[in-house]
Amino acid sequence: MADGRLVIGTQRYSSWSLRGWLSVRLAGLDVTIETVRLAGGGQTTALKTLSPNGCVPYLEHKGAVVWDSLSIAEYCAEFAPALWPADRCERAHARSIAAEMHSGFRAVRSALPMNLGRLNRPGPAPLAEDTCRDIARIDAIWTGQRQTHAQQGPYLFGADFTNADAMFAPVVCRFLSFGVPGLSDASRAYMAAVRAHPLMEEWYRQAASEPQDWQLDMYESLP
Amino acid sequence: MADGRLVIGTQRYSSWSLRGWLSVRLAGLDVTIETVRLAGGGQTTALKTLSPNGCVPYLEHKGAVVWDSLSIAEYCAEFAPALWPADRCERAHARSIAAEMHSGFRAVRSALPMNLGRLNRPGPAPLAEDTCRDIARIDAIWTGQRQTHAQQGPYLFGADFTNADAMFAPVVCRFLSFGVPGLSDASRAYMAAVRAHPLMEEWYRQAASEPQDWQLDMYESLP
Repeated sequence: MADGRLVIGTQRYSSWSLRGWLSVRLAGLDVTIETVRLAGGGQTTALKTLSPNGCVPYLEHKGAVVWDSLSIAEYCAEFAPALWPADRCERAHARSIAAEMHSGFRAVRSALPMNLGRLNRPGPAPLAEDTCRDIARIDAIWTGQRQTHAQQGPYLFGADFTNADAMFAPVVCRFLSFGVPGLSDASRAYMAAVRAHPLMEEWYRQAASEPQDWQLDMYESLP
Repeated sequence: MADGRLVIGTQRYSSWSLRGWLSVRLAGLDVTIETVRLAGGGQTTALKTLSPNGCVPYLEHKGAVVWDSLSIAEYCAEFAPALWPADRCERAHARSIAAEMHSGFRAVRSALPMNLGRLNRPGPAPLAEDTCRDIARIDAIWTGQRQTHAQQGPYLFGADFTNADAMFAPVVCRFLSFGVPGLSDASRAYMAAVRAHPLMEEWYRQAASEPQDWQLDMYESLP
């Protein structure tokens, strides 16, 4: 008998679900995973009544009802403190970049949708100015963190894959699938490390076994 | 000699600054408060080099560099745990509605800009459908919390003004200034309680002493 359930969307497309799933798995919460097939646009009728905000990921655990990936990240960190850096200043930094991802980078999220079936192929048009600005800021965040923690391990704060890495993991997927140019060597090494994490391997494997949705795959069919 | 500084934007208009300022003040951090005058649109050239993400609020405290209001809220809660409810399930709930506010309700934020000089006056046009949907969801959140905690005090989780209240405080300002109709009795009582909090009184007083910005006040000049 599990302690609850985590509801996620189609793994091929649901970037926010990946974040929540990573935090829950890293914290080792004993929950069953339920997947809701997303229809084009990301919100389905089933979701509207499933969770308080009508979105995934959605977690029920030992009486707690938790929605929104950043709230799930904080909830999981209460059980697994290593999900945030141990040092107060680094923890503040990790939460700041996680929050910046949570509320921002709308151009990247809109122009480069997550699609794990897409491999290293540029989008149908040149990247817009606001998308390039988002990419430059993300590249600066990753590069700065990797320069600071190069000796300690491959992730944003060194050896541990933290909630900050979980928040940026879908961006890694997007940048890889669209072959985003102009990133630093440090950022490209970081993306490779995230992609190679055992949980990311597991997520990609599961995503590959899902049926494709042609509406969500629209970019694939463009020249 | 203070332990650091909190940089905020013009108090009359900067809703995110109000959130960060409330958390910092409630936690009693000993920081100097610096105000940057915002130009129309919210982002000024001064800000772009001031904080890592080019936005306010921005906190420096005992070696920590913290940006984004939700990250500041978590940072402050490390010093003042009462900023989140003590119960694990309630804390998860509080973080979930705070995160929902942090990344969502874009229609309300765009259609009903914060302007503390504006008093109970409807906007220039009927509210759009997505704005009404946001308002209904916020009303449901407030009403549900007040029903659960009616006996314990006037705020979302009872007697303590938590980070969840701080996140919704600028929404209270917006709803009051636009005279948003259709809210429940519980929501209206909640708004009155937030508005009457001593820190909100202090913020409004300070905002009233600032010069107006006619570009940001554009709604004021419409019929």
